[in-house]
Amino acid sequence: MMEKWLDSLITATPQEGFELAIKLARMGVKYTQPDADIRSKLRPVYEQNADSLTLASQVVAIHYQTVAQANNYWK
Amino acid sequence: MMEKWLDSLITATPQEGFELAIKLARMGVKYTQPDADIRSKLRPVYEQNADSLTLASQVVAIHYQTVAQANNYWK
Amino acid sequence: MMEKWLDSLITATPQEGFELAIKLARMGVKYTQPDADIRSKLRPVYEQNADSLTLASQVVAIHYQTVAQANNYWK
Amino acid sequence: MMEKWLDSLITATPQEGFELAIKLARMGVKYTQPDADIRSKLRPVYEQNADSLTLASQVVAIHYQTVAQANNYWK
Amino acid sequence: MMEKWLDSLITATPQEGFELAIKLARMGVKYTQPDADIRSKLRPVYEQNADSLTLASQVVAIHYQTVAQANNYWK
Amino acid sequence: MMEKWLDSLITATPQEGFELAIKLARMGVKYTQPDADIRSKLRPVYEQNADSLTLASQVVAIHYQTVAQANNYWK
Repeated sequence: MMEKWLDSLITATPQEGFELAIKLARMGVKYTQPDADIRSKLRPVYEQNADSLTLASQVVAIHYQTVAQANNYWK
Repeated sequence: MMEKWLDSLITATPQEGFELAIKLARMGVKYTQPDADIRSKLRPVYEQNADSLTLASQVVAIHYQTVAQANNYWK
Repeated sequence: MMEKWLDSLITATPQEGFELAIKLARMGVKYTQPDADIRSKLRPVYEQNADSLTLASQVVAIHYQTVAQANNYWK
Repeated sequence: MMEKWLDSLITATPQEGFELAIKLARMGVKYTQPDADIRSKLRPVYEQNADSLTLASQVVAIHYQTVAQANNYWK
Repeated sequence: MMEKWLDSLITATPQEGFELAIKLARMGVKYTQPDADIRSKLRPVYEQNADSLTLASQVVAIHYQTVAQANNYWK
Repeated sequence: MMEKWLDSLITATPQEGFELAIKLARMGVKYTQPDADIRSKLRPVYEQNADSLTLASQVVAIHYQTVAQANNYWK
């Protein structure tokens, strides 16, 4: 059981929404691999691989669609 | 025939919705590979591969779009 | 020409909708590779590869968005 | 300049819509590789690769979202 | 700074919309790799690789969702 | 903590919206790999790989969906 980490999809600004999307992408990884030590070991590998970074950016993009819509695009 | 595992897409909170998205992603795998023993053998492999984890996080992100919309973004 | 296999996107429950999404994902493969023998040979390979299973789960997730929206999220 | 190949996204049934999605996915390839001979040579390769088939099925799934929405999910 | 290349997402027909989606997919590449000589060298490689073509078709599919919605599915 | 880089998803034209989508895709990478030196080293590698460029274009396509919807497709 994961402790509470997400209260709302509403954010004050588009940038904060983007940062929430990044958090959601990371939590998707964390639920699959809960061991922080293993995640730490994997980090230096994918952080220096261009395609891994693009793939990570893609997950953020998908979550940002959700967050942006939740916030009615901050209009 | 799979037993009943999904009653509703409605959840009380955004976090529970995220956890439902994780379940949906796993069920997508389970329908394709119903053998729990094989899934258990595969787990330690992809759990230590950064791109596999990102890919898993991506499936969660797609399902989260569905769950979030079903819940009107918990607004 | 494929025989009739899809009448409606409407399902009674979210779980049946998920199972329809799985069928849609498989039909996408079947249209591209109509030879059942070849598909049978490929099955044991990708069913034991974690990334292949995640990729298959991703296609299900995309179709589930469609089916869920068609059913107004079973609300 | 490609000749006319697409008149409408409207189809009579969900299955015809799925078949249109398959056509759209193939046309995406055809615009990128217009040489039919090269496409014919590539076909036997990816048709026997499970991940290639899943990837092809994914493109169909994305187009099917578009076609289904255009047809208001055939409701 | 890129010169003007996109005035509107509105097109007269679904096929012209598809062709705009192809242009958008190519522009996504062009912004990342502005050097036309390098893009020309890469072209013969990915044009003869089935998965590269499917991947390119996928980007077109995503843009086509946007263009189709902008045009209210040409209804 | 990242400094302010995003004020709004609203742009004057579809092309400026596309350029914002490119920025969003890059920021997704930057949050994951904040070290500019490493990003500079990775750039010449993926900029000469066709599939890497297509993958980058895909992330742009996903963000462009968000930006286009935020701007009501500039209609």
